[in-house]
Formats: sequence, structure tokens, C-alpha cells
Amino acid sequence: MIIRSSCPIDFETDGKQVDFIRIPRSDDVSSAGSFLIPIACIRNGSGPTLLFTGGNHGDEFEGPLVLGNLLRELQPEQISGRVIIMPYMNAPAVAKGTRCSPIDGKNLNRIFPGNEAGTITQTIASYIARELIPLVDAVYDLHAGGRSRKLIPSIMTHYLADKDLEQRTFEAALAFGAPVTIKIEEHDTNGMFDEAVENAGKIFCCAELGGAQTVSTETLRIAREGVYNALRYFDLIEGDPHPAGWHRWNGVRSIQLPDESYFSYAMHDGLYEPLYDLGDEISPGDGLGRVHFTQEPERSPVMIRAKQAGILFSRHSFGLVKAGDDVAAVAKVL
Amino acid sequence: MIIRSSCPIDFETDGKQVDFIRIPRSDDVSSAGSFLIPIACIRNGSGPTLLFTGGNHGDEFEGPLVLGNLLRELQPEQISGRVIIMPYMNAPAVAKGTRCSPIDGKNLNRIFPGNEAGTITQTIASYIARELIPLVDAVYDLHAGGRSRKLIPSIMTHYLADKDLEQRTFEAALAFGAPVTIKIEEHDTNGMFDEAVENAGKIFCCAELGGAQTVSTETLRIAREGVYNALRYFDLIEGDPHPAGWHRWNGVRSIQLPDESYFSYAMHDGLYEPLYDLGDEISPGDGLGRVHFTQEPERSPVMIRAKQAGILFSRHSFGLVKAGDDVAAVAKVL
Repeated sequence: MIIRSSCPIDFETDGKQVDFIRIPRSDDVSSAGSFLIPIACIRNGSGPTLLFTGGNHGDEFEGPLVLGNLLRELQPEQISGRVIIMPYMNAPAVAKGTRCSPIDGKNLNRIFPGNEAGTITQTIASYIARELIPLVDAVYDLHAGGRSRKLIPSIMTHYLADKDLEQRTFEAALAFGAPVTIKIEEHDTNGMFDEAVENAGKIFCCAELGGAQTVSTETLRIAREGVYNALRYFDLIEGDPHPAGWHRWNGVRSIQLPDESYFSYAMHDGLYEPLYDLGDEISPGDGLGRVHFTQEPERSPVMIRAKQAGILFSRHSFGLVKAGDDVAAVAKVL
Repeated sequence: MIIRSSCPIDFETDGKQVDFIRIPRSDDVSSAGSFLIPIACIRNGSGPTLLFTGGNHGDEFEGPLVLGNLLRELQPEQISGRVIIMPYMNAPAVAKGTRCSPIDGKNLNRIFPGNEAGTITQTIASYIARELIPLVDAVYDLHAGGRSRKLIPSIMTHYLADKDLEQRTFEAALAFGAPVTIKIEEHDTNGMFDEAVENAGKIFCCAELGGAQTVSTETLRIAREGVYNALRYFDLIEGDPHPAGWHRWNGVRSIQLPDESYFSYAMHDGLYEPLYDLGDEISPGDGLGRVHFTQEPERSPVMIRAKQAGILFSRHSFGLVKAGDDVAAVAKVL
């Protein structure tokens, strides 16, 4: 089997190592060299191993900012166990602020377990799947809504065939302390980082911290507290996890998105006028937002209605909307 | 003089007319035809003329949404006077969600008074300067922060050589009822719509309603109430203007950005971590935000500090920042 990716870090050594995963390149930009993907290992004796990842999508910024800070400030003497940090997983995408790689156009979160003989993004996935997933007890992958979506700062887990893993995962997610903790049936799991970790029998928690290609001081605070809560929950540092709080409520609410009827889609291209904010109470039939037609100024906008009762968990955020866009998820509060 | 732009609307007739400005095109997409820019005239007897414009920049969405709604709902019998509405001034840019025109790459707000023999964007400016500015008493141009900036929902006016016009403009802006009303010395006025209207001796108010290529129910509400407040202030409809309110405070605060020292700039490319929210109190020396270096994960982020005391009026919102970006404006509260 071909192995092209490499990293100088020895994950079995105590101390702090900050380095880069190297992926050989030879292309129109560099005749010979490597792509460099930052990674850190901070280890002190025995204990659990947590992997924190940010920048899986390059248009989601809380993970890169908060994990960059964690990488610099966390010292081996502060922990018992091992913390691996990849603040900019898809570093070329983060550098451009794009969801997919500007090098090969691929979405890192759709190509796991990767391919060592493939493109750069496939090779990043391959390195993580081969070298890191076997080492870890749990992964916290920090996302946000990307260019076109905003969500209540939250942490997601999946319904799993292994019910014991499902339960342990949900408890590790609750400990993160986000305003909402979610269990979800994904529509499009093929090639997700999530599935690669879950299939290895490990805990995978996906934080969704904000969106609209921006961050706020609040989403940054929730992300930072969540990461420290995870360290506390796995006894890597002392103390008990505590909810991060949110301007709409304190504490942790548990919600579900049981099936497709909790999502609403645009059926037309146009401008999107949202009529509710994140966290608002929604009843079936409520108008969630309207699509406006700029070429036909006299035409009435088309209303998009909720099918279920719950709270508005996510909404389309970009001014333009495309037919087929998921414009709102109304979540069931447990 | 060449005149290429035209519109079937008769601005001297009572009633409601919704139509399009036509700008001839012959290019790789259409061999022969016109670009169509929506416009409406709603008139009932004598009285002042207000022009409301949205979509001057195509990545700012409150104006297009709120003025599209106004265009459909406002009827001649509701008003005394004349209302002209252009919800999607730079319609090709609004259709793509881009600041500048996707047809000719031009920023509509930098090419007034336009050029009939020029490109589409120059011709839009020319039509407005030639046909509309002479008709109006006041213009409310609805902007937002665009892709990379968020602002306190606000309305801006300028220091003017004509001090009587400056005062009448400021009062018309205050009436809009935004959380803050600003008087500002622009850095880059050449070719702005603002200047074209002010040079004609007319009132020009520039609303800045949100930003980050998104809208919220709050910024939409403030924009809508502002437009109706303007109609009330100029006695086109009955009633008195009232402040729209904001989640940080009620009422209208008056602020100034007297000189360059109230703005802070990034000096490096990187990821931007904001440390304060819009409306926060700032003291000189406060760290407003930090630029992170993704290629050098161990390098400390560079802090950007405030030089003046005041409130945080605007901040960089996009996750990436470029050297030279205006990352924060700290405004002096009067």
C-alpha cells in the first residue's frame, strides 16, 4: 500500500510537539515540495486521548480560532493524558475561506476514509483515518453553518447501531455544554469524518457553532468553554463541565430532528427574507421565511411554512437562496 | 449627448406604476436586448418626493427585501406626494449577491454621475443622476456592511459645505429612528451616490443596516420602520416617526467618527478573532481583535488596539482578514 502522508510527531512521547503533516505536491504552483497541515500533540502520562479538529470546512471559523488558541496555551503539565489538535484540518480551504479545497475542489467531510494515492484532500483524510483515529477515545470536530446557514450554537450526535456507543457519545456531547445538544439522522453520511470515527467504535461529537461565514464573541466563548468542558469530562483537566450559556437561555437543552418533516426547503431561486430568529418557538403552519423574485417586483414572495412544532434550530443566512436549499430546521425539544 | 437608458414611467402622473429602466445590451449573452432595472413610482397629488434605493451594493440585503415589500404594499391613496422606489438598483449585482456588478465589475457607488456611453453600471448611475435626482426632495439609500463588515443598524450623514443642508439632512436621518445616527467624514467620496445627491442640494441619508452578507429579523424590522418613519417625517403618510429600538438599547443615539484615529486596520493577512461586540464600550488601548496566522500555529496572534474611547460601531465580520482591512470603528457618543 502506498503511504504518501507523513508527520514527524511521535504521539507516544510526553511533552508538547507542534508540527505539520506533509503531503507531497508537484503541480503548477510548486514543482516539488509538500502541503503542510498543522497538528499538535500534547501528552502527559497515561489517560484518555482527545482529538480536537477545526477547519474541516474552510468557511467555518470558530474551530480554527479557538483551537489555534488552545494549541498555543495548553501545556503538558496541565493535563493527564493526550490531546491532539488540528486547528486547520483542511488548511488550504481555511486559507481561502472556502468550504471545499481550492486545490482539488473536494469537501473533506465527504471523502473519508480518504485515499493515499488521491488528491490532497483525500490524503489529509487518509492520514487522519490511518494515524489518528486508532489513537483516540473521542473526537470533537468544530463546525459552524458555513456560508449560507446559521444555527443555534450546538453539538450533534447520531443515532447509532451500537446503542452503548450512542449513549456514551450523547453524554460526551452534553458535557460540551452548548445551548443545545442534538441527536440527528444524517441525510448524507457517506464519507463523513463522523462515520469514520463511529465505525471505529469511538465517540464523535460534531459542534455547530454559528455560521454565515462569521463568528461572534458569543460563539467563540461557547466553543472555547466547550473544548475545556470536554477536557474536564474526560478527566484530562480537573473540574466539572458547566453549560456555556447563551443569550436566549441558560443551561443545556436536548433536541431532536427525527425525520425530513422537520426541515423546510426553498423551491425557487431568489432573495430570502427570514421571519423568525434562531431559538424562536414555531408552530406547524408558521411562515418561516419568504423567497422574493427580483426580476418580477410585483410578484408576491413565496412563503415557506413549518410542518412541525418546535424551536427554530437553523436557518438560511445568505441573502440569496437557491431552489433546494435547506432554509430552516425546526427541532423537537425533549 | 447620447441617451441610451429609458423608462416608460411618467413620474408626473398620479397612481402606481411599476416598470423597468431599460439599458441596451449586445454582448456574448444577448445579441440584442436590454438589461432591466426595476423601478416604481407611486404618486398622489402634490407633496414631497422621496426616493428609496436598495441594492446599490448587491451583497447587502435589507434594502432589496424591505423595499420590495414597500413596492408591493404601498398604494397611492395611502400617501400625499410621490414615492419612487428602486429596490434592486444594481440588479445584476443583487442577482449574484456580489458587491460590484458581475457584468462590468464596477461598484455603482463609485461611478456617479455615470456615463450614458459607458458600461451597464455607469448607465444605471447616469439614469438615476439625470432623471431621478432632479425630482426628489430626499433620498434614503439602504445599505449594510456587505461581505466582510457588520455595523450597528444606523443611518449616516456627512459634514457638508452647505450647513443648512447638513442640518436638514441630519434631522431627516434622526427621523429614520435607527439605533444610531452618524455624521461622518467619508474617506473615499469620489463617485458616490451620496455626493451626487448632496451636490444637487438634496437630502441624502445612507442607512447601514447589518452586514456579513446576511440579514436578521431585527435588521429587517429596523429597515422597515425606518422607511415608514421617513414617509411620516416628510408628511407623505400621517403620524410621527418613532425609534425602531434595538436589543442593546432603545431610542436614537447620535455618534460621530471625527477622523482616522477612530478606525483600526489589520496590518497582516490571517484569520480575525473579534474580542468585542457591536455596541460595547471601548477605552483607548483596548484590544479589539486579533489576527491569527494559520501557517505558523505557534506564532502569537497580533492584537489590534483602539486609539479612541467610544462604542464599537462596526467590526470586520468575515473569518479571513487582509492587511489594510478596516476591522473596527470606535465611535464617539455625543
